[in-house]
Amino acid sequence: MSPRGRRPGGEDTRAAIVTAARTEFAQRGYDGTSLRGVAREAGVDPKLVHHYFDGKSELFVEVMAFPANPAVLVEQIAAAPRDALGETLARVFLAVWDGPEGRERFAAMFAAAAAHEEHARMVREFVGREVLHRVVESMHADPDVGPRQKEALEVRVALGAAQLIGMGLLRYVVKVPAVADASVDELVAILGPTLQHHLVPPSPH
Amino acid sequence: MSPRGRRPGGEDTRAAIVTAARTEFAQRGYDGTSLRGVAREAGVDPKLVHHYFDGKSELFVEVMAFPANPAVLVEQIAAAPRDALGETLARVFLAVWDGPEGRERFAAMFAAAAAHEEHARMVREFVGREVLHRVVESMHADPDVGPRQKEALEVRVALGAAQLIGMGLLRYVVKVPAVADASVDELVAILGPTLQHHLVPPSPH
Repeated sequence: MSPRGRRPGGEDTRAAIVTAARTEFAQRGYDGTSLRGVAREAGVDPKLVHHYFDGKSELFVEVMAFPANPAVLVEQIAAAPRDALGETLARVFLAVWDGPEGRERFAAMFAAAAAHEEHARMVREFVGREVLHRVVESMHADPDVGPRQKEALEVRVALGAAQLIGMGLLRYVVKVPAVADASVDELVAILGPTLQHHLVPPSPH
Repeated sequence: MSPRGRRPGGEDTRAAIVTAARTEFAQRGYDGTSLRGVAREAGVDPKLVHHYFDGKSELFVEVMAFPANPAVLVEQIAAAPRDALGETLARVFLAVWDGPEGRERFAAMFAAAAAHEEHARMVREFVGREVLHRVVESMHADPDVGPRQKEALEVRVALGAAQLIGMGLLRYVVKVPAVADASVDELVAILGPTLQHHLVPPSPH
């Protein structure tokens, strides 16, 4: 589309950007998508994309209709006291997904990932870059962990995420009563220590 | 269908039983399906259903094309030494689902459960009755656990299952590299203690 054909500002522009982003993420994955490429696909000036969205993760969160931006939550979690890391993670996860909209989005995300490889790729790359990588980096900076343990830490952090995702699957999708009917406090009481064990590996000393 | 219309024995009968069972499980759930009802739907003598399938769980495993019967695996796991319970569980889970056919079935099961409520219900009831309930019963019989802790144990066992299911989702469906590329031994080394913590609750004494 030529510059003359560019859309005017306002809700139409925002919607055109989201539609273009949906196409770009599906075709190129999360890592391969750029805000410039989204602007080109939408036929708008790249500055407009930056006007409506703070960055690529915000755009992805909008496309996926996530109830919150995981990248922002990771910062909250990283700021938690070290010995309350597991509990904080469990509480933040449940606070985000436990609402009616969150439950629905959680189910939709995994249905799409299981049905379409391009969807699995988007989720994989987003979770890898904006969640796992950020958690590992913030813990890696901790002098108690150190570079030597970094590779094992990536597996540990991913398995901690697996614990929460599996809980979400049983609570929101399959709805196994023991998990679906448990209170947030009950779940946090069990998941907190488990996640703590995953994220803060037993000291090698 | 009248008795006169009943099908002859052989592969056709077996296939008719599986087709009828698929319909019955989807309509009535796992708990609401009986082998007698499946026989009626298939237009065969109930004895023929028992001839081809040991029981309802075997029929469900066939309908779902599971690589193994979870109910049989639970017995193997329950026979493991108490202090190796977590590690055994992780190894058995990975041994079943890590094959190419297992990976595909795992993804298909969760795609269907997320997309169709009747499928979620079948999986929920099967997992509840043949996996979680059996594990809880076998641990409940353990004098160290006792009836007092039984309710908490149900949540714990379900969250242990959530850890494995979430790992399966990241390894087989979303394919997050840290989990998809890890060796079985690496995963077992991390998951074993986590599952042990879930299944063998810290003593209240």
